[in-house]
Amino acid sequence: MSLSPSPGPTPTPVPGPVRLGGRAQVALRPTESARVTGGFWYERRRVNAEVSIPQGPALLDSVGNLHNLRLAAGTVSGEYRGELPFLDTDVTKWLEAASWQWAQTDPKAEFAQAEDVDRMIRLLAEAQQDNGYLQSYYQVVKPGLRFVELRWGHELYCAGHLIQAAVAHHRATGREDLLTVARRFADHIDDTFGPGNPVDGICGHPEIETALVELYRETGGQRYLNLAGYFVDRRGHGLLRDGPPMLGDAHAVPPPSAYCQDHVPVREAETVTGHVVRQLYLLAGAADVAAETGDPQLRAAMERLWESMTTTRTHLTGGLGAHHESEDFGDPYELPNERAYCETCAAVASIQWNWRMALLTGRARYSDLMERTLFNGFLAGVSQDGLRWLYVNPLRVRDGYESHGGDNTARRTPWFTCACCPPNVMRLLASLPHYLASTDADGLQLHQYATGSYAGPTDGGRVTVRVDTDYPWQGRIAVTVDEAGPGEWTLSLRVPQWCEQYTLEVGGTPAEQVAEDGWLRIRGAWRPGDTVVLNLGMEPRLTEADPRVDAVRGCVAVERGPLVHCLEQVDQPGVPGLDDIVLDPAAGLTVRHRPDLLGGVTTVVGSGRLRARPAGQGWWPYRAAGSAPVGMPTGTPVELTAIPYYAWANREDGSMRVWLPTS
Amino acid sequence: MSLSPSPGPTPTPVPGPVRLGGRAQVALRPTESARVTGGFWYERRRVNAEVSIPQGPALLDSVGNLHNLRLAAGTVSGEYRGELPFLDTDVTKWLEAASWQWAQTDPKAEFAQAEDVDRMIRLLAEAQQDNGYLQSYYQVVKPGLRFVELRWGHELYCAGHLIQAAVAHHRATGREDLLTVARRFADHIDDTFGPGNPVDGICGHPEIETALVELYRETGGQRYLNLAGYFVDRRGHGLLRDGPPMLGDAHAVPPPSAYCQDHVPVREAETVTGHVVRQLYLLAGAADVAAETGDPQLRAAMERLWESMTTTRTHLTGGLGAHHESEDFGDPYELPNERAYCETCAAVASIQWNWRMALLTGRARYSDLMERTLFNGFLAGVSQDGLRWLYVNPLRVRDGYESHGGDNTARRTPWFTCACCPPNVMRLLASLPHYLASTDADGLQLHQYATGSYAGPTDGGRVTVRVDTDYPWQGRIAVTVDEAGPGEWTLSLRVPQWCEQYTLEVGGTPAEQVAEDGWLRIRGAWRPGDTVVLNLGMEPRLTEADPRVDAVRGCVAVERGPLVHCLEQVDQPGVPGLDDIVLDPAAGLTVRHRPDLLGGVTTVVGSGRLRARPAGQGWWPYRAAGSAPVGMPTGTPVELTAIPYYAWANREDGSMRVWLPTS
Repeated sequence: MSLSPSPGPTPTPVPGPVRLGGRAQVALRPTESARVTGGFWYERRRVNAEVSIPQGPALLDSVGNLHNLRLAAGTVSGEYRGELPFLDTDVTKWLEAASWQWAQTDPKAEFAQAEDVDRMIRLLAEAQQDNGYLQSYYQVVKPGLRFVELRWGHELYCAGHLIQAAVAHHRATGREDLLTVARRFADHIDDTFGPGNPVDGICGHPEIETALVELYRETGGQRYLNLAGYFVDRRGHGLLRDGPPMLGDAHAVPPPSAYCQDHVPVREAETVTGHVVRQLYLLAGAADVAAETGDPQLRAAMERLWESMTTTRTHLTGGLGAHHESEDFGDPYELPNERAYCETCAAVASIQWNWRMALLTGRARYSDLMERTLFNGFLAGVSQDGLRWLYVNPLRVRDGYESHGGDNTARRTPWFTCACCPPNVMRLLASLPHYLASTDADGLQLHQYATGSYAGPTDGGRVTVRVDTDYPWQGRIAVTVDEAGPGEWTLSLRVPQWCEQYTLEVGGTPAEQVAEDGWLRIRGAWRPGDTVVLNLGMEPRLTEADPRVDAVRGCVAVERGPLVHCLEQVDQPGVPGLDDIVLDPAAGLTVRHRPDLLGGVTTVVGSGRLRARPAGQGWWPYRAAGSAPVGMPTGTPVELTAIPYYAWANREDGSMRVWLPTS
Repeated sequence: MSLSPSPGPTPTPVPGPVRLGGRAQVALRPTESARVTGGFWYERRRVNAEVSIPQGPALLDSVGNLHNLRLAAGTVSGEYRGELPFLDTDVTKWLEAASWQWAQTDPKAEFAQAEDVDRMIRLLAEAQQDNGYLQSYYQVVKPGLRFVELRWGHELYCAGHLIQAAVAHHRATGREDLLTVARRFADHIDDTFGPGNPVDGICGHPEIETALVELYRETGGQRYLNLAGYFVDRRGHGLLRDGPPMLGDAHAVPPPSAYCQDHVPVREAETVTGHVVRQLYLLAGAADVAAETGDPQLRAAMERLWESMTTTRTHLTGGLGAHHESEDFGDPYELPNERAYCETCAAVASIQWNWRMALLTGRARYSDLMERTLFNGFLAGVSQDGLRWLYVNPLRVRDGYESHGGDNTARRTPWFTCACCPPNVMRLLASLPHYLASTDADGLQLHQYATGSYAGPTDGGRVTVRVDTDYPWQGRIAVTVDEAGPGEWTLSLRVPQWCEQYTLEVGGTPAEQVAEDGWLRIRGAWRPGDTVVLNLGMEPRLTEADPRVDAVRGCVAVERGPLVHCLEQVDQPGVPGLDDIVLDPAAGLTVRHRPDLLGGVTTVVGSGRLRARPAGQGWWPYRAAGSAPVGMPTGTPVELTAIPYYAWANREDGSMRVWLPTS
């Protein structure tokens, strides 16, 4: 079952999406070089590179995003297509994804989408105004309202994604063309916003904050870091209160101030609130500012908000957000299943924020949540074939579920009206190797386990380690030192939060070391060829939720390693519907690897029974407590097969559930 | 604790909102005369008449509804106020409520809002165009788009409420002024829509169907019944598919076809779907058409849809609708608590439809659901003081609930942006006496129990009965015959579906009669002064839901008589938060009448314990199933006091829950 092909020649290392600046005050630094060369993530990244990313240009052409930019450039005429003001970001996020992929292509000349990238960059440059402004919607549809409708206009959000694409493209190719476009827009924004400038305002949708910090890192332009700090700190003062209406304003969503995190400064916030992606992009940006400035108050706020989020508002999959339609956080422990929100973009944003927190603090818990999110809430967002997507990632689809289409359907869709998620998945998968390991003065830290090679500088010189593993199917993680300086240094391995039993071998000999605060820190005078093997216990387990989570009372979930599992109707041949199953927790769980299934997955099989459907119950679905269940005898015993949650919705449509009743 | 004042002189009977036409083919007919003279509903109706209805005119003035009509009339100038196209209905629904109240005022000359009614009728007449058209929004804001934006324009919906107001006003006063306005608009619509006319279309929001049948009944105009039939039968053919966007279209709600029940003809529909109030108003109109035409296919569809709704999509309170924001039905057994929708208007619509079904079929189950809805899901919509409202009626408000304002907050509100609910409550309470009893050839049927007097014709002559009861606080219902013809006839008493034990006395003597299909049918040669006493067992009980209702697994609800109970934080002095309580079902329940509390309620007290808050649990709210609960010892015993659900949210803000965990 090894999925490790032999790696090709090592290309020039290109730094990933977080490249710290000169004065960064962080515990850990991203690796200089990171390659995933085999195993689980290699295959997911291969599909991303060979199928998902290549599909992008044709989709952007057919849906109208490129047409809109051509309208702005004045090279075509016609109607603006689509109603959302942020359609340009589908283009820039695709450009960012393609650039990260380009960076990992060797030789770079063989990158298949190079011409598409060039074409889109030329189009953006043509569409850009002389003063640097660039957003097709406000250029074509509402030219008189630039930087006026800040609550809903997404102008700085669009600028942010343009900047991130430009930074990725510059890192990948060294070319200046897109970076020049992005700098011109960033400079225009910096000339427009802030003290002494015409506009004192922020964007309804955070995103530019983290982008500006990356632009500062890439160019050294201090003004970009300062502007990011301005946007972080001006939020929370009600600047968005009186803007024009937002989608859904009239009736349903929290008022824009809280929805856009403009009700309280991020430094003072006690809890995450409002629109999830807005909140998490803001926190990623604030973490970036804290990393570059060492601001202790901002860092303390990040840590406080992280705890408020994880302890009371995180789904088992790492998915975030309670409300299916308004896309926002709910009350504490409000974690519904079928109407969960758990947007794929929220998972991406959570991973981005958590990686910054891991670097900032060095604490394993951020990487724990990243792992859970990567393998579950995030990865479910894209189909196995790389062609179909989920915008929301519910934990339950009922028997009789009626899809009404729309973006938030629980059925996979080739693209969305609001197509933010697909290119977000593409850019994260393309840059994934850079989220897996870090270095500090004293050594190298492996946060996530993927077959590949990870390298960076330490005080004792550059170190490189190679990882070989069939994780998450097996718990054996073999680490080999490929390059090391002369002195002692520390190789740190994260023991995942879910793992209760593990063993360690150093140089082939069992070692008794115990993880502290999630890290096994193994110090030694490592030489090339030295090996460490971590064996994580992979017994399947049943998990229950805090009793305040109403939605899953009396239920358990099946987990194995970092993977949350779920039942899909198609895997339960004798079961008429998943609404009627009961799992017997005492009957034990069996692991079955199924190389034939869903590209090769390990399933977990449990025992349970069917509740007969209560046919004669009458028209009222309630009855005296403890009364004999009508039409519900002991029930037929059934075998229940749970697949990894990330792999659901890749076969025929049907019901699905993560949480299983036990009585 | 008797709440029965002595009734005043009997005024002229005025028929209620359902007055059957000459060819009606129904099992039962509404009473000719119905008066509620004391007890529970007398008090609620008194507040409605003395507080809620009198507040209306000032609110309609200050919010802008009357201003908008003045703009249409050309008597003022200025901007149209509000963004919703159906703001006129707040006026017409208030007029309908006031008219029903006027009908029950004796002497009628003493009706306090008569001048307000006259003023508004004059305003409507002034605003009406020469051709009969009347909707201020399309007259002022979009004069070029009349009957074009049918999907979202609410023009026929507005016409429907105008017609219903006019019918009520005509029945109450005999005056023609508002009826003339309504007929002119109805005639214009009949000249515009349908075969041979310019428009083949339906309204995105049903409502006119039932109104047109009432207009037919009031005027004898066959064209109105025919037009109602046309609107019922043209729905379901995708006529609304290509309209302009609706609120929330872009992202969240089901497509307009299903949302507006335009995806399948009502005759062929297998299940309720889409926007709840739209669905239920449509079904009320279809039931009206079936009642007048005897259409068996339409009746069969009603019965089928009712079963689909009640068995799988009804909350314990009778509340309907699973989705808080899109306001629509969910999948089967998708019945969340805190994000329940349960709009107050949906409860009103359900009562209206169920009453029509009760008349059509004579079956008690429709009155069972009406009772549950009246006492719970409906009545919670208005505060005890008659001044504050709930648009949605959740079954749970969490500790730490953050109200973001908006119409769908779980905090009572003086008025709404979309203020459909308050005048809907007013009109139902004002006309309530007519929903309580019926007659047929053979006798009189008591569907609901409220102190008062109910009369109508039978084949043997007119019969009148008087009811005295402290229901729902006590189960004793005393019925006295006040008027009877010479022969035998049948007095029918409904035994509520919730009731397992009851006794009957006829003429002071115990009778052994057993209810059949929900009815105790007592035949006799009744004479004035004859008495029947029904004693319903009022032991409090614990109720559980179908196991497919995920949201309440492992929970029970407290009920007593027709009342669903709930815990409010304010009644649990030793309990830090309702998220942490567990009820012990074996410990029994105690009934305590509390004349001091909430205008006098009977509470139910149970025993339970507190879960200690799991302080040391770490950042992850999930753990191994069956592991020792951290920080959760046996728990402090607590007394838990449940008040009737309808009375919640009348004191300080706090958490609330209907469903209580048992472990």
